Amino acid sequence: MKLSIHRLAFLKKLADVQRAIPSRTTIPILTGVKLLATNDSLVITGSDSDVSIEMTILVEDEDTQLVVHEPGSIVLPAKFFSEIIKKLPSDVFTLTIDSNKKATITAGNASFTLIGIDAAEYPHLPELEVEQVVELPVPIFRQIIQNTSIAISTMESRPLLTGIHILIKDGLLKAVATDSHRLSQRIIPLPASVGGQNVTYDFTIPGKTLVELSRIVEGLESISMSITDNQVLFHTDRLSFYSRLLDGRYPDTDRLITNDSNTTLTMVASELLSAIERASLMSHVGNNNIVKLSLKASEAQLTGHSPEIGTVKEELVYQSITGDDLEISFNPDYMKDALRQFGQAEISIHFLSPVRPFTLRPTESTLDIDYNFIQLITPVRTF
Amino acid sequence: MKLSIHRLAFLKKLADVQRAIPSRTTIPILTGVKLLATNDSLVITGSDSDVSIEMTILVEDEDTQLVVHEPGSIVLPAKFFSEIIKKLPSDVFTLTIDSNKKATITAGNASFTLIGIDAAEYPHLPELEVEQVVELPVPIFRQIIQNTSIAISTMESRPLLTGIHILIKDGLLKAVATDSHRLSQRIIPLPASVGGQNVTYDFTIPGKTLVELSRIVEGLESISMSITDNQVLFHTDRLSFYSRLLDGRYPDTDRLITNDSNTTLTMVASELLSAIERASLMSHVGNNNIVKLSLKASEAQLTGHSPEIGTVKEELVYQSITGDDLEISFNPDYMKDALRQFGQAEISIHFLSPVRPFTLRPTESTLDIDYNFIQLITPVRTF
Repeated sequence: MKLSIHRLAFLKKLADVQRAIPSRTTIPILTGVKLLATNDSLVITGSDSDVSIEMTILVEDEDTQLVVHEPGSIVLPAKFFSEIIKKLPSDVFTLTIDSNKKATITAGNASFTLIGIDAAEYPHLPELEVEQVVELPVPIFRQIIQNTSIAISTMESRPLLTGIHILIKDGLLKAVATDSHRLSQRIIPLPASVGGQNVTYDFTIPGKTLVELSRIVEGLESISMSITDNQVLFHTDRLSFYSRLLDGRYPDTDRLITNDSNTTLTMVASELLSAIERASLMSHVGNNNIVKLSLKASEAQLTGHSPEIGTVKEELVYQSITGDDLEISFNPDYMKDALRQFGQAEISIHFLSPVRPFTLRPTESTLDIDYNFIQLITPVRTF
Repeated sequence: MKLSIHRLAFLKKLADVQRAIPSRTTIPILTGVKLLATNDSLVITGSDSDVSIEMTILVEDEDTQLVVHEPGSIVLPAKFFSEIIKKLPSDVFTLTIDSNKKATITAGNASFTLIGIDAAEYPHLPELEVEQVVELPVPIFRQIIQNTSIAISTMESRPLLTGIHILIKDGLLKAVATDSHRLSQRIIPLPASVGGQNVTYDFTIPGKTLVELSRIVEGLESISMSITDNQVLFHTDRLSFYSRLLDGRYPDTDRLITNDSNTTLTMVASELLSAIERASLMSHVGNNNIVKLSLKASEAQLTGHSPEIGTVKEELVYQSITGDDLEISFNPDYMKDALRQFGQAEISIHFLSPVRPFTLRPTESTLDIDYNFIQLITPVRTF
């Protein structure tokens, strides 16, 4: 195997593949990156056996300056290989693999040798028998991942809650995540032209995996998604991203979401966020991380308190308050995560009582879908 | 006590003072910042008892918008106080201390209360009886600190070596640091106009302290230095920076530096640095962190090797090699630290033998002082 390629073009693809490569693993070969050179392409593969990423560089991609002098394959230690490529002195480097699987990387006056492993020993990627493909518009899909990933659980005790649940039905895609203290749900219509109108899928993808995918597909317009019983594949002509799905039945979250409200506060999300950041300065001291919101007919007051340090009190500048007076306490970190997802938008917060979950929604929506973006937070009982 | 002041102007001074304030300490009041407001100024003080920093803001400094409504003093928890100021919603804030030492910070709609401590309980700063003042040009003094601080020891077993040794004599200032594996020395002439021509001082300042000082004085033109037996004070009209000195007699480092050389390599520092960064990719694996330099009449080759991973070999592009052939091994991290201090300059490296320390110097110097900038590195014996 012998090829030469532009250093930075290669590095970018290698960095994407490395998102799947573990630094430690019980299967040592998975700390390596697999390279497969054919006469017209170079395929770079990384995997931690749950997630596998494959990037393809074609000889016809001129900016990569890929020239395959001799086809072949090899597995190289991913971390060192990428560190070497990063530090090479020239724009283009040459990679040669000899019959003993020894790799020689040359660039300028520098020459590296690395001990490789036969690519035949690398695990095979899952082969999906794909019946139907759903085409996802990447920019909004990335938003969905960002909006819902804040609510995924980090506790391995309930593995399903570490995922984002996706339901595709009647031309809509619904994504939900909850760690049982808070929930975030986003619904978008799927483009009618590209499949997904007549299929129903119901599955849960590990949240971390989707966050990695989101980074890799940045800049793309659309990506195809294919699903089998236990695998999902996101793909374009240059990228294949495989992930296992989480086993089990995701909790029914629809029953948590209602339109009922006894008190409603409407204000700009970013202004409430700033106030909560100030209030949480105090609440973060000690074990009792809560802030309190007091709503009256014409007053919204936020307070944070630490017995050791002091207190903070702030009159909120709001758009409207309707309904009953209310005092409610909550974890300010959950609230901050939720509010950041709304940016500068105006939101309404719907409360039932000091002990019932409350919901946050944008007041204006461009979509005619109920609950197309809704977040739910469980308050903290203080009495 | 009551005052109002521009938030960002205050924060900048507070951040400088905080460089001295420890997050944990056996003297709890030192985690606080002392504020002393008089009719025409606000003095902010922080200390860890080894280093004390005092910043003064004058009412006449218009950009600070300082208004002292009522003089007074207080000690406030530094970390929380600065976090609060950072998050305040408006440009100017008001600080009020009541008779119970309770501080109220108001800005916009937000109001914080913090529990303060009587400033009378704060330790007194050392009072220096200053005989003579040396005026230091700040830009070059900062360079000296940067150039020498790389070689200070981090081992507390020989406390003196954690400092930078400064000798002022015959109108010259010499700074030296060594951790016994390497040494960095810089000598500058002191301006004749501003003292220091007729005094002799010989003292060692904790290296970390000088690095903090260097950050605080960035942007200043000059600073005054006053020395007593066990204290040094750097000061301007807005800043006082006190540090204890290290006890004991610094080792005689002059005897380590000679002009003798059996082999000399001349090349651009930054190019050698890049090559060593590449070579050290391999050497950093495993316990044997060395790279090898081979010099012959017309060849300079750098190699790094890891039995687990592979090797790297590079032909260096040099200006000249004179003297005997040589093979020498060294810790690439020491070499990288040293080379970074020379930037893009051409340097000469003077070798005696594979087991004797070698020196790095710039080939061109604007100063007519022997060894005005010299670095010394002890090689690693490999046989």
